[in-house]
Amino acid sequence: MRSAAWLEAVDERLRQQRCFIVELDRLKSVARDTPIINASRLENSAEHSWHLAMLALTLTDCAAEPVDIDRVLRMLLVHDIVEIDAGDASILVHPRDQGQKAAERGGARRIFGLLPEDTANDFEGLWLEFEAAESSDARFARALDSLQPLILNHAVGGGSWTQHRLDEAALRSLKIQIMDWAPRLWEVAEAIFADAVDNGWLLQDRLDSDGG
Amino acid sequence: MRSAAWLEAVDERLRQQRCFIVELDRLKSVARDTPIINASRLENSAEHSWHLAMLALTLTDCAAEPVDIDRVLRMLLVHDIVEIDAGDASILVHPRDQGQKAAERGGARRIFGLLPEDTANDFEGLWLEFEAAESSDARFARALDSLQPLILNHAVGGGSWTQHRLDEAALRSLKIQIMDWAPRLWEVAEAIFADAVDNGWLLQDRLDSDGG
Repeated sequence: MRSAAWLEAVDERLRQQRCFIVELDRLKSVARDTPIINASRLENSAEHSWHLAMLALTLTDCAAEPVDIDRVLRMLLVHDIVEIDAGDASILVHPRDQGQKAAERGGARRIFGLLPEDTANDFEGLWLEFEAAESSDARFARALDSLQPLILNHAVGGGSWTQHRLDEAALRSLKIQIMDWAPRLWEVAEAIFADAVDNGWLLQDRLDSDGG
Repeated sequence: MRSAAWLEAVDERLRQQRCFIVELDRLKSVARDTPIINASRLENSAEHSWHLAMLALTLTDCAAEPVDIDRVLRMLLVHDIVEIDAGDASILVHPRDQGQKAAERGGARRIFGLLPEDTANDFEGLWLEFEAAESSDARFARALDSLQPLILNHAVGGGSWTQHRLDEAALRSLKIQIMDWAPRLWEVAEAIFADAVDNGWLLQDRLDSDGG
């Protein structure tokens, strides 16, 4: 990063804020596992965060419990920033392990640490709340984060499911928490699973195909 | 777009919401005039909208008037959606003309029209408020939208200023409303102008170089 000598007329707080804003730009280069719907490339974590925030505004009435949608929005905007350091680990490939979680904690410390302390604490709090999935706001945010790649992979006709040769049972077990967190969104997930199997975009569960 | 027959188990409201969410994905393919900071490609309007929402959360204390930051966030998340139909028109190249504005109005009608009426009205209202720049919330949102490409072009060492051979006076006049909308952000803009001229990333105003 360039030295901030040219910013000497500006106070320290505003310098820190600008530094953080410049750092955030790097999230636009963190590739996720899901293609965008025109299949031209993988989605990045910055545009994904915007898409999720729009899901929250669009699907507010699908929350199972009363939520403060403005807190949900903030959580979704902030939740992937740690990936600037840690990268995006696809749950379709392997569960997030301790190494990944440590890298994310380190990312939070470094990146939020660029900010004035009050804002750093706010953002870190939102990120930890999202991760813990204990509050109603966090559970709805997590449900949206889990649903969105289903919508994309389905709309693109397989996407990362095809790439990883995923079967319905495996995908369903990775997504099952949507059922608790936002049952109405689970209706959409169920319709997607069924249509994806019908179209051969998702391998049929072996138990089902054996008549089990 | 695929027929929604496969969604027959889901009610009409949820079908409309999903249809809108799929449509939004196209904003990830609308290129803006500004490069991302690693200079590898142009920014797209979806990730730009996320970046702006993060600017709002980071720079809340820079608003000149009392603002409802949650409304500012919503405005910023929604404000570029019309570009799915209208594209992004760079003000560095030419002012937005009537044709562009008509295309944006048509985009708003079509894209927000995919939604249930209550949500469509909410989003259209936010977009119109942003465009009008009359409320304190909209003015702060507009100031952030105006500042963000300055930060990017400066961090990248010229970017679209160099491409369009812009001089300081021209850029300053395009950005001058930041001074009214958020004077504290204008301090950052001033530092950026000065440093960009020092580094030759922005042509010197001719009057200045003539000693005027």
